[in-house]
Formats: sequence, structure tokens, C-alpha cells
Amino acid sequence: MAQPFITFLSDYGLQDDFVGVCHAVIARVCPSARVIDITHGIRRHDIRVGAMILARALPFSPLGVHLAVVDPEVGAQRRAVALRLADERLLVGPDNGLLWLAAEAGGGVVEAVEIARSPFRLEPVSATFHGRDIFAPVAAHLAAGAPLAEAGDPMSADELVTLELPEPHLRDGVLIAHVRYVDRFGNLQLDAGHELLAGSGLKLGRPVTLELPGVVHPAQYVRTFADGVRDALMLYEDAQRHLAVAVSQGDAAARLGLGVDDELRIRAR
Amino acid sequence: MAQPFITFLSDYGLQDDFVGVCHAVIARVCPSARVIDITHGIRRHDIRVGAMILARALPFSPLGVHLAVVDPEVGAQRRAVALRLADERLLVGPDNGLLWLAAEAGGGVVEAVEIARSPFRLEPVSATFHGRDIFAPVAAHLAAGAPLAEAGDPMSADELVTLELPEPHLRDGVLIAHVRYVDRFGNLQLDAGHELLAGSGLKLGRPVTLELPGVVHPAQYVRTFADGVRDALMLYEDAQRHLAVAVSQGDAAARLGLGVDDELRIRAR
Amino acid sequence: MAQPFITFLSDYGLQDDFVGVCHAVIARVCPSARVIDITHGIRRHDIRVGAMILARALPFSPLGVHLAVVDPEVGAQRRAVALRLADERLLVGPDNGLLWLAAEAGGGVVEAVEIARSPFRLEPVSATFHGRDIFAPVAAHLAAGAPLAEAGDPMSADELVTLELPEPHLRDGVLIAHVRYVDRFGNLQLDAGHELLAGSGLKLGRPVTLELPGVVHPAQYVRTFADGVRDALMLYEDAQRHLAVAVSQGDAAARLGLGVDDELRIRAR
Repeated sequence: MAQPFITFLSDYGLQDDFVGVCHAVIARVCPSARVIDITHGIRRHDIRVGAMILARALPFSPLGVHLAVVDPEVGAQRRAVALRLADERLLVGPDNGLLWLAAEAGGGVVEAVEIARSPFRLEPVSATFHGRDIFAPVAAHLAAGAPLAEAGDPMSADELVTLELPEPHLRDGVLIAHVRYVDRFGNLQLDAGHELLAGSGLKLGRPVTLELPGVVHPAQYVRTFADGVRDALMLYEDAQRHLAVAVSQGDAAARLGLGVDDELRIRAR
Repeated sequence: MAQPFITFLSDYGLQDDFVGVCHAVIARVCPSARVIDITHGIRRHDIRVGAMILARALPFSPLGVHLAVVDPEVGAQRRAVALRLADERLLVGPDNGLLWLAAEAGGGVVEAVEIARSPFRLEPVSATFHGRDIFAPVAAHLAAGAPLAEAGDPMSADELVTLELPEPHLRDGVLIAHVRYVDRFGNLQLDAGHELLAGSGLKLGRPVTLELPGVVHPAQYVRTFADGVRDALMLYEDAQRHLAVAVSQGDAAARLGLGVDDELRIRAR
Repeated sequence: MAQPFITFLSDYGLQDDFVGVCHAVIARVCPSARVIDITHGIRRHDIRVGAMILARALPFSPLGVHLAVVDPEVGAQRRAVALRLADERLLVGPDNGLLWLAAEAGGGVVEAVEIARSPFRLEPVSATFHGRDIFAPVAAHLAAGAPLAEAGDPMSADELVTLELPEPHLRDGVLIAHVRYVDRFGNLQLDAGHELLAGSGLKLGRPVTLELPGVVHPAQYVRTFADGVRDALMLYEDAQRHLAVAVSQGDAAARLGLGVDDELRIRAR
């Protein structure tokens, strides 16, 4: 790669020096690499949200090495891995499901290595900061052109940890969806995508109800939340072509009392 | 440009992946571009503060493309624009006043195009994330050297949305100013600049009163807040040569109960 | 330097444009410089934590210019300095102790200049934003290859402000340590390093007590917090080979009510 790119996602936050030190480690190993921070604001230890954000960012990213660290079991027995996908992207991170959705989106894993004892790691490897000691240096060596096979010990892609997510579905004309993500504006991204709309009876500009146990909220199905009435609940298809709920100039998560993984039933009126 | 620069300001925050995905989009279109994040901490939908921060950052920035997204009406009828200024800077963002102060500071707009249907946009354009789908790719193509005229449809600069701000002024020897910005330290930046000092009677080292409806706060007019007494209110000329109010080691905004746009009357004693 | 690196640490936070404007200033002076943000999340005015984070980040950073700004006395009489260390690193920042631990770790200062009136400064120098007007431009010129002697007036390294820190020590078999840093997870980094373990009686896997005035907390000394029981207090050696206290999936700082500089006594059981 003339100008190698590394994307970087984590739950490290920016208050501490975790992210900065990983950038520093990368710069020592591969000074020409450009690092793009996807986000470091993943909720602490939230592997599922991390996996979802990573998978949705990759189609917009240059081909390169994609480093991701949400690692509640650092220092325990979980594997550390580097993967080559069918689309030539390289993923580096803990083997806890975090890389799974991105791997699927990239056509599946065609080569996998276990990197806990990678020759590229920084010695002594700490028990708590594998981002600095294992993941960042391995990502940087791969960006610098090292073959994947030299980064660790070969393993079968079949052994990788996968991610189980609830499936959105239609039942008796009701769309049963789940909250995948809450952004800083309180907008709720759901797991129900464009393909479930056909059987849902939802029509642009028409009223819907958002149903939670014991409470029914009236809402409007709109093209974009700019079309909604101020302060009213709106359902819309978001930038990832998933259904989402927002309150114009307001906070839908607070209004509905919903968080990640909660179920929401949507009924056309 | 040998090394093209893009500055980037928004209200996206860093908790989500909005900013990271825009960086990724830019890197795909123009891998050689360097992106400088001015800030992404603008208060949600606060066009006026965004406009002010952008205008004050540009004189310190390399010549380049200046991308700004504070966009409460995304998906509604507001225009999306790219502008060339008299000083050769290029601005890209929504046409809602956000770019206005920067355009004025750069000598005015000499060429303007409407970019909602730019050939550089990412298809399908989402209704909610024009930063990713319109603004970032247009900025990146311009950084890569595309002529402005190819980025969209020509429009008259006279049609651009301007920004109305209250004017600081002197009345009966009292300086009437407004809060423009509150930084993370609680320092209040006012709109009254160096040019209003002459008629104000303010003298370095002398007491002043800061007057709000129903309450008068004694303060000191000092060269810098390091000259102030700990815990006391101080008025000083800040790094932008505007008047500002601070409390040494404290929070002036909390002390006075003031926020953006509030009026403050300053009287020399 | 083919690709000059500047690391940047401050207490500016990312909500305002302070950091972005410093990046912009650097890019104008030295367009080829790569800036690595160590962190800008240092607690406001906390020189000691800034000094500690800077010193621990440098060994992982490429050789270059290391810019640091935690500057409670900006505009007052403290000096502004640029330093060359024995290991060839260049440090730029206020002379208030912030650079001291990094200078010691880099083998000491071999050349020092006072830069308040540096020919590289931006005029007019504001009283409040020396990051923009003095420190960033000086760092950028040094990154571009300017000799240190041209950045300011020579001064003796003996005049530099040092940092006094309490010393961790053993007394009657009790390890007396102090909190150096609290990360965003509430993990407490202590000042007691690997070298004090020998006389402490601590043994991996064995119980200890963490003693505060009037209260004794039982804990476990473990290799990594992944080895700990959920919700229990654990003592472990962290990524900097210092002792640290954590609660698995919890917040040790909140549990113990401890903050930076507080003393903690550790007794093997």
C-alpha cells in the first residue's frame, strides 16, 4: 500500500492516554500509516455495539487494517486474532465476537492467525493493555506490509467466536424490533432493516404506534426527522437503511425509556 | 495542493462514529488529504456558536477546504453549498448561516454552488447523514483538486442565508455585550471586541461592575486571569481580543448563571 | 526527520477549539508534521497527572517533538521553555514541572531555551492562549528542523522547575502508596512500582487488605483483573508495572472514595 490506512475503534474513551499511546506505538512501527479513529466512545465492554459500529463503518473506509478493541476479558483466556477477509480487509482485535459482524460483511474470513504470542508484540506484554502491547503493533506491522502468516499462529476460522443477536421479525402484522444503538442525540437505531418494511404495512406520512409493555406511544412514519412535528415521536429509515426512532429537537431514548437490546413493537395504523 | 488540508468542525461529538465515518469517506476519495478537526463539540444544533468558532479558527488554519456541519434541518429544504472565498479558501456545509461569519472574514464569497445533487455525493444519499453522503465527499473531491464548478449547480452568493447577531454597543457609558461562547472552563467570551474599549472607560487594574437584571457583581478589569484574585470575577481581553469573564480557578458561567446569547452590562467604576 | 512527529498532551479537552487551533497552527508552520494526540483529557490544571502521563507515554512514542500544555499560570511569571533531552527528544511547554518527569526519564536536559519571546511565536501573543501563540508554533518550527538555539534564549537546566512527589515506601511490612491517576474506568494507578514488591510480602493469588483511615477493605492480589471475582476489589500490577486497584466490571475509585494523591496502605495477609 502506497499510503497504508489503519482504522481504529475502541471503548477506551479519549479522557485517558490509551488511544494516544496506541497511535504512538503504530507510528513507531509504521510511520507512514494514517490512522482513522472510527470512534473510541463505545460504551465500556459493549462488544455488541462495537461490532455493529465497526461493521457499518467499514464499507465507507479505505481498504486497510481495521483495529478494534473492546475487550472485557483482557488477560483471561480469550484469543487475540488477526483475520483476512474475502474483500482483502485485515481485522485485528480480541476474539470475542467484536470482529464478527465486520467479518461477515466483508465476505467471511479466509485466513486467521492467533496473535497472543505474535513476534510483533511489545515485550513484556502487560496483563491489562493488549491494545498497546499486542493489537496496535500487530496492526502496524500488517499495515507496513508484513504477511498475515508472520503475525501469529494459524488457526481455523471455524473456531472464531461468533455473535448471537436477536432477529427482528414480523408477527401478525406487527414489526418486532430491538434497539441496536443509541446515539448522543438520543436517537434509537433499531435492528429492523429495509427488507422487513414490505410486510409491515408502514406507509410514509402515516401514523404508527410504538408499543412497549403496558404503554403505547403514537408516532408518525416519516422520510426524515426534519419532516416530523417538533417534540413528536417519529419513525424513519436512517442513514444505514435501518428503522430508527427520534424526537425532533428532542431525546427519543429518554422519552421512551429505552436502551440497547430493548424490544420495541411497531404497528401501522 | 501538494498536501491538501481539510479542516472539519461539527456538532457530531466524538461518542458516536459520525466523525470517524466522515474521515473514512474523505480518505477513500482523497487519500493524501490531511484532516484537522477544529472541534466536534459544538452544542447540538447551535449554528451561531459553530459559525463563530469556524470564523475564529480559519485565520490560524492552512489554506484549504473547510468542512462544517451543524445541520438541524438536514433532510428538510435548506440548501447544501460549497463556496469559494476571496482569500481562496473553500467552504463546504449547509446553507443555514453556519458558514456566514467565516465567509465574511475571508473577504466574501466569489463563487457558490449548490451541492445537494453533486456528482460527488455518495448514493443513495440518506435523509439524515449528509455529512457522510454529501459534505465530506464534496470536500474531499475539492481537496483532490476538482474545480468548484464541477461540485454542483451554480447559484448566486446573494441567495445565501446570513446570520443575524445582536450588536454590542455603548449606551450612556455602559458597555452592553452578549455571551458568544462558554468554554469548558466556564469562561464567558463576549461579543464586545477591542474597538469598543475606547469609549467604555475601562482601565486595566480598575474595578468594574457586571450588571444583570436585578443583580450587580463587582469585578476587576485585568490583563489576564492570572492577574486576578483567586475566586474573584475578572474581566479581560481574551485570545481573540474580545472581552471575556472568568473566575480564577473557578467557573464564571455558573457563578453568573449566564449562557450563550445572554446580555451582560459592563460599567467602569 | 523525513516524517517529523509531534506528540501533544494538554488539559484543553476536545469540547472547545483549543486543540484544533493548535493543530491548525502546526500545519501552517510544518505541513509535513504528523501530530499524535496523547490525550487532552488531563484534569484541568493538574500538572502532576499531566507530567506522569507524558512521562509514561514517551517510551512508546517515536522520537520527535513533545508538546505539553497544562498551564494554570498562563500569562503570569512562569517561564515557557523548549528542552533537548539526552535521548534526543525535544520537549516544549510551560516550566511548571509538567515536563520534569519526562525530562528525567529521557536522561535529563542537555539544552534549554526560554521561549516567551521566541522569534517563532505568533504576534500578538495573547495573555491566555500560549498553546496557540507560543508552544504550538515553536514545536512546529522545531519539527521542521529549526535548531533549538534559534527558538529562544539560552537558560540553565538547573533553573527548571521540578516536581515534588510523595515517595511510596515500606514501613513495618506495610506498603504505603499514593494514587497517581484514576482512569475512566475508575481504576486506581498507584505510585508503588515493581521494585517495592520484594519486601511487601505480596503473593499472587493471596488476600491483602487495603487500609484507609478508619476502614479496612479486603482484596485479592491477582495477575490481572480478569482473574478477579466480579465486584471484588483487586490489587494487580498494571501496564506500567505499577500497582493498581480495580473492581472487576466496577469502579474502584468510587468504591474506596479515593482520588489523586490520596494515600493507601497495603498489607499482605
